[in-house]
Amino acid sequence: MGVSFGGRKNKGSAAERELLKMFWDNGWGGLRCAGSGSTRHPAPDILVSNRKRTIAFEIKATKDKSKYFPNQEIDDLRRFAGNFGAHPMIAIKFGNIGWRFINVDDLKKTDKSYAANTKLAETKGLTFKELLNL
Amino acid sequence: MGVSFGGRKNKGSAAERELLKMFWDNGWGGLRCAGSGSTRHPAPDILVSNRKRTIAFEIKATKDKSKYFPNQEIDDLRRFAGNFGAHPMIAIKFGNIGWRFINVDDLKKTDKSYAANTKLAETKGLTFKELLNL
Repeated sequence: MGVSFGGRKNKGSAAERELLKMFWDNGWGGLRCAGSGSTRHPAPDILVSNRKRTIAFEIKATKDKSKYFPNQEIDDLRRFAGNFGAHPMIAIKFGNIGWRFINVDDLKKTDKSYAANTKLAETKGLTFKELLNL
Repeated sequence: MGVSFGGRKNKGSAAERELLKMFWDNGWGGLRCAGSGSTRHPAPDILVSNRKRTIAFEIKATKDKSKYFPNQEIDDLRRFAGNFGAHPMIAIKFGNIGWRFINVDDLKKTDKSYAANTKLAETKGLTFKELLNL
């Protein structure tokens, strides 16, 4: 399934569905979360597990070379992961290099947000294959 | 938060939110799943964990004394739980006895569905406190 770079919301949902399918196709289980961002409890975009490792993701798809995550988004992801018992990560599908998976601790901290660009993604991020084989 | 016995969909969502809040209030983490029933991948209504135990729930709220779960719904719950690594359970809020939590293996099998009534819920089901203290 391709990721449309049209409407912001559709783009996000398509990327979430695409990534979820990749995990199911590799024997993991997972789900998209309802009302992420609109409930009083923190929730990631998708949550996946293979019975041994559980990962909570915030997901972005972008044509740009860098992407920003507001502090609140990363704080919520950490809080959810802490209570649930999941590893908090960012999944970004860049237009040029494709999917990269980055530990939240490896994001670059700015004043009001966390940032990842393609350079950081290629040095500290994992490909999907690397992520599965951790 | 009370569970309205009005529209079927609202009733379900209100019960899901109520139960999710109960888990967060007790130090668990959890989330409501998007598009449960409308995606190609199975998904429970809510998924919760306290870092040691992970439970995937199908949720109902009913004024009736019994409730039926189509075979497909329980099969999907089992499939999700198997891949993700969660314990598959049913949560029913009965009008008279309140919340009860039932292992899917304890549901009564009929031809096209699984069933639970208040008697089964009181004999084989757990209260919320019992569930937390397992």
